[in-house]
Amino acid sequence: MQTDIKLVRNENYDPKELNLHETLFCNANGYIGIRGTLEEGVPKDFPTMRGQYLAGAYETIPMKQAESLCNLVEEKQTMLNICDTQTICLTVCKEEFMPAAGGVIDSERILDMECGYTERVTHWKSASGKEIKVRIRRMAHFGMKELFTIEYEVEALNFSGEAVFDSIHDAEVANFSDPDDPRLADASPCYLKVAEQGFSGSASYSVSRAENSGVKIAAVTEHVLDPSSGSGCMMREENGRLITRLRVPVRQNEKITVIKYAAFSDSIREKDPKAKAMSVLKEAKNRPIEELYDEQKKYLSKFFERSLMTIEGDNELEDAVRFNMYEMLCAAPHDDRSGIAAKGLSGEGYEGHFFWDTEMYVVPFFLLTEPSLAKNILSFRYATLPEARENAALLGHKKGALYPWRTITGRECSGYFPSGSAAYHINGAIAYAVIQYYLTTYDEDFLLEKGLEILIETARLWLDTGVYDRQGRFCIHEVTGPDEYTCMVNNNYYTNASAKHNLSFAASLFEKFRNDERAVRLADRISVTDDEIGKMKKAAEHMYLPYDSDYGINPQDDSFLEKPVWDLAATPKEKFPLLLHYHPLHLYRYQVCKQADTVLAHFLFPSLETKETMEKSFRYYEKITTHDSSLSTCVFSMTASMLGLKDEALSYFGDSAKLDLMNRHENTKDGVHTANMGGCYMAIVNGFAGLRITEDGLSIDPYVPEGLKSYSFPFSYRGRNLRLTVEKDTAVLELIEGEALEFSAGGKKVELGKEKQWKWKL
Amino acid sequence: MQTDIKLVRNENYDPKELNLHETLFCNANGYIGIRGTLEEGVPKDFPTMRGQYLAGAYETIPMKQAESLCNLVEEKQTMLNICDTQTICLTVCKEEFMPAAGGVIDSERILDMECGYTERVTHWKSASGKEIKVRIRRMAHFGMKELFTIEYEVEALNFSGEAVFDSIHDAEVANFSDPDDPRLADASPCYLKVAEQGFSGSASYSVSRAENSGVKIAAVTEHVLDPSSGSGCMMREENGRLITRLRVPVRQNEKITVIKYAAFSDSIREKDPKAKAMSVLKEAKNRPIEELYDEQKKYLSKFFERSLMTIEGDNELEDAVRFNMYEMLCAAPHDDRSGIAAKGLSGEGYEGHFFWDTEMYVVPFFLLTEPSLAKNILSFRYATLPEARENAALLGHKKGALYPWRTITGRECSGYFPSGSAAYHINGAIAYAVIQYYLTTYDEDFLLEKGLEILIETARLWLDTGVYDRQGRFCIHEVTGPDEYTCMVNNNYYTNASAKHNLSFAASLFEKFRNDERAVRLADRISVTDDEIGKMKKAAEHMYLPYDSDYGINPQDDSFLEKPVWDLAATPKEKFPLLLHYHPLHLYRYQVCKQADTVLAHFLFPSLETKETMEKSFRYYEKITTHDSSLSTCVFSMTASMLGLKDEALSYFGDSAKLDLMNRHENTKDGVHTANMGGCYMAIVNGFAGLRITEDGLSIDPYVPEGLKSYSFPFSYRGRNLRLTVEKDTAVLELIEGEALEFSAGGKKVELGKEKQWKWKL
Repeated sequence: MQTDIKLVRNENYDPKELNLHETLFCNANGYIGIRGTLEEGVPKDFPTMRGQYLAGAYETIPMKQAESLCNLVEEKQTMLNICDTQTICLTVCKEEFMPAAGGVIDSERILDMECGYTERVTHWKSASGKEIKVRIRRMAHFGMKELFTIEYEVEALNFSGEAVFDSIHDAEVANFSDPDDPRLADASPCYLKVAEQGFSGSASYSVSRAENSGVKIAAVTEHVLDPSSGSGCMMREENGRLITRLRVPVRQNEKITVIKYAAFSDSIREKDPKAKAMSVLKEAKNRPIEELYDEQKKYLSKFFERSLMTIEGDNELEDAVRFNMYEMLCAAPHDDRSGIAAKGLSGEGYEGHFFWDTEMYVVPFFLLTEPSLAKNILSFRYATLPEARENAALLGHKKGALYPWRTITGRECSGYFPSGSAAYHINGAIAYAVIQYYLTTYDEDFLLEKGLEILIETARLWLDTGVYDRQGRFCIHEVTGPDEYTCMVNNNYYTNASAKHNLSFAASLFEKFRNDERAVRLADRISVTDDEIGKMKKAAEHMYLPYDSDYGINPQDDSFLEKPVWDLAATPKEKFPLLLHYHPLHLYRYQVCKQADTVLAHFLFPSLETKETMEKSFRYYEKITTHDSSLSTCVFSMTASMLGLKDEALSYFGDSAKLDLMNRHENTKDGVHTANMGGCYMAIVNGFAGLRITEDGLSIDPYVPEGLKSYSFPFSYRGRNLRLTVEKDTAVLELIEGEALEFSAGGKKVELGKEKQWKWKL
Repeated sequence: MQTDIKLVRNENYDPKELNLHETLFCNANGYIGIRGTLEEGVPKDFPTMRGQYLAGAYETIPMKQAESLCNLVEEKQTMLNICDTQTICLTVCKEEFMPAAGGVIDSERILDMECGYTERVTHWKSASGKEIKVRIRRMAHFGMKELFTIEYEVEALNFSGEAVFDSIHDAEVANFSDPDDPRLADASPCYLKVAEQGFSGSASYSVSRAENSGVKIAAVTEHVLDPSSGSGCMMREENGRLITRLRVPVRQNEKITVIKYAAFSDSIREKDPKAKAMSVLKEAKNRPIEELYDEQKKYLSKFFERSLMTIEGDNELEDAVRFNMYEMLCAAPHDDRSGIAAKGLSGEGYEGHFFWDTEMYVVPFFLLTEPSLAKNILSFRYATLPEARENAALLGHKKGALYPWRTITGRECSGYFPSGSAAYHINGAIAYAVIQYYLTTYDEDFLLEKGLEILIETARLWLDTGVYDRQGRFCIHEVTGPDEYTCMVNNNYYTNASAKHNLSFAASLFEKFRNDERAVRLADRISVTDDEIGKMKKAAEHMYLPYDSDYGINPQDDSFLEKPVWDLAATPKEKFPLLLHYHPLHLYRYQVCKQADTVLAHFLFPSLETKETMEKSFRYYEKITTHDSSLSTCVFSMTASMLGLKDEALSYFGDSAKLDLMNRHENTKDGVHTANMGGCYMAIVNGFAGLRITEDGLSIDPYVPEGLKSYSFPFSYRGRNLRLTVEKDTAVLELIEGEALEFSAGGKKVELGKEKQWKWKL
């Protein structure tokens, strides 16, 4: 295994950087997410988003519509900041360790991605001249999802005396509220109220409850001291907070260590979350911490074995791509009770909602590296199919399911339906991911137990929405495509293309497995008939895909090309992103795109159009796209790769892979851009490497973009482990494990199996 | 003059009817509106909307958007319930007069439209058997707009004793809140807070202030007793209310009378509203009440002389039309500080907002009867042109003015812009009214001082909104026409037609008066250039008016006919109005109309299409229109008249004229449907009588619909007073006053002047 996958940053406690570090050094494991805030806190007026989150834990809050219309969404879910168990205030000989207020001689933060923990090491001098070295290691454990540990080590460098740790457990914390945002000013975002809390033996515990949703969160903490001799422990409740005070003698050049174990559970997953948290805590405490670290390392070793990308020629890019992979892992749910939020578990941006980009941008990464995580994500969609059916009914549909545009529980949370609920293409994205999951894994169990039902219910929605026009074309009206700068249009090309794909595969996969008893039961349970399958095939076949012969391109929708082109050149820089500076009605009246829309459709469904149409469309849309969304440039890059536009592919790829690591958008403090991370992975794997998995199997058509020497990555495909290595002139696909296979190498069908690798010239 | 224009109703104090009577017996004069609630109040649990309103008096309240987007409206205005000065509690020999709780022998309510007051006469017997006759006459004075009087007469029929009047002045009242509407449940609608109140001599006074808008309302009351001998008067403040207690000896078979004068003023119109109200009160009190009644009667006599319609063959219809005329007069503003609210001054429905229907449905009535009132309405629009310019800028326009869809102050109050701000056709309606005002009155002063600026600024908005398509057609995208069941469409036929009219007249009237010094100043002030006028003419000429050759009709918009037709026959009755039962996105996906849209365009702009196209369109749209709006059937009726479809004209006319008088929609309790009243007038005058005023002058092409014998009405036209009388076989136009004129009688140009009447065969 590759070693040294680390992110190391100098920590100068600059308020401008601290909340960026809170995001970058967040500890998460798909269930717990704990921002990398400082244990001791920060001085007043330092910006901070002190947050601990559990995947899928939410409160329901009212969302009154300014004008009430029938069936508009009037409440939404919001992710919960569950509690604060990370606070540990240290005083050494009565002097408070508060490096953000001064005294730092040297400090560093490390995210060790091989070990799966973060570290902060600070050499600090008190006002009276006492020097200490503090090393704090934090871990959200991948094996024991409920467990978070803080190992807090103090070394007295030039004195002996006493250290006092005040370790806090505060179960009544507020969600983040931006004081500069007047919309939040009068909202009291303290959603969780303590139901019970106290001490049990040397452990602190709390159970808190969100009033509207009824969701309960349990948290327990306990401390282990080393050495424990001579120390004292006092527990008290003060101002509603549970405080454990540890007094420890320190001697010059000796280290003392406090380990704070915290375990969490929730009533979404557990009947008795408190008992669950207690039992996890007990189990963890009974094992040496080194054993937990080892387990963590092994877990990650396996993960990187299946995913680690090597890029020669651009170390920064390699670092960024690896960081992104790690972050996606941290965001991936371990069960079917949540999806992946826009910011993963690293912040409260977008209120912790799950959108279409999970399926379209993040799932592809897991499909090729850790398909079980992709399955979790899709299983969440299966689990929320009843809510999607209800949502469809609210929107007036007689049949089918419509997934919510943004959600935590499966219920729609969009406040503005024209660019929320009207984005029916989320159905297409989920169906696409289900199909890709099947094509990549051949996991028939998932397909027949969950996936096919999703495919049929989403396909039904298209049947119920669309209508044949006078020319016999199947048309879909009043929907919003990925580009939100145009809303509620007719025949959005992307939507129609993805509906066609959805309808077609729903029918063909149903037919393929129609004799399997699980498919028979499904057909019976949800009344699938031959007639309906026939209608799906017919709608797919006659799906209208707008084409404009004047321009030789696919218009984004029926009326798109009739509108004037927005003058981007004349738009001042400070007016971007446009949606923050122009009334939506104004935006809708122009040809201007927030993000890839038709260009994404071309990438996903390249067989629908000629290369000429796709290239002309690419040229057309690139002139009118602002890329105000972080989901845009990666798509332009992969489509450019597909079209052989290598310069453009590289230029669009740009440094979006480094978006968070380099804080390019200056908003990583609010959380990472999870979907962009997946999109960049796709831009390399599906773009540069031209890797495709379709019903015809695996095909690879790679190149190395300018500026790079080579790249290499492992991936899994239908039970096999493979590795692709691409150099300027050659590509090699190795079969590491599994049966022989046919694949298409640069357009040529070849067999990989007898020889364990296939090398070809580029 | 015709006599006996009265509405007389038995008053049985049935709670089901009481709030209907509050609307029907409302006293209003265009400034004050005081619902016909009972002076003594009603028992608990009786429904009531106890309201007193002043035209244009408003509070600003927050209207948070569920999802904040750029420049969305986040606050709105709402009309104020200003105070309660109508309460008078009577006790006779310690027994409380509360007829709604029982004891009524006989009671009647009267709206005397010739006299301009309402009366309630009640013969009542107390629990102990004392009988009294109470006659209460109320008047909102047309001459002294700030004045409201209650003349309260009591006659002891079978006893002598003492009457005590507790007359209340309560300046801190709440707006109406429907306890069944959960949206209002937590809102405290008591917007006005008392700034000062007390007694001054024998008068009570209050000044209250709306916190956000700063609008101040002054109210003063004072009492006059007859006979005053032996009576006592005590004033006190109790629970924030000002109470004047009058003790009066009563003797059997003698009458005692209390007159309560109330005067109101507001800070929108007056620097010192309290002083103004005081001075009005003083002036009124110094004159005998009979003199005030006489003045009122004279005012109305003049009004009916210019407007009173006679209909032979349907007395009920005649009554209803007269009631409607009176109600429109009561709603008409006396200055440029307000428009006409959807419910006039008779209730709080639609929050007292002014919409496009004022100009499109109500102004036509005043144009032909009392053009000065039409001028007030249009002057309000002129006064709020700055706000309309700001509104246009908020929506991204570089030039022009966009009138708000709903407003009190001129600022937009729509919470849902797709069927609010996007209804750009309000600009067309206001421009149409300005043009019709000019064509009907030839009032050049108004045109050059106000109207032309409105025309140019609204025309500019079309220029800034529209764009030439590839065929060189001027197209208008993303607007909403009158039919709100389809929103944000391209090339709404109605909108484009009204924009064409607006552009064309803005250019032609500017050119006509370009040498007038006021037009020169205007051009200079708002920078009108020849180039711009040229662009207006070109856009008008090339305006795209969608036509579908398959159907031979004008489609409502570009994509309307591509959508499936809503199955109205299969829609259960309880699902109407559709907008209360279906998500808007669902409605938008069908061919289904809430109200006349293209059909209204055909009526307004008949020269744009052939009769065949208009008739086919009429037939097409009538099948898919639900008439969920009270503005719809009157338009179908007038268009049917225009097309010679007499049966349809009669059938659509139906009894919509009687909508309020007969409470056909069962919601007149919330206030009258002012625009429908105007629409019914139009259905007779512009529909049955085929009266049109265009740049070619006056034309009349009348018929008498089945079931009527004849009808006759006066009207004014370019300084002349005329009367049209239509019988089955003949029509007569009389010139009552003014110069000779040419007009078109049934398609034939004739001159009326030498002979004072022109009679022609039908």
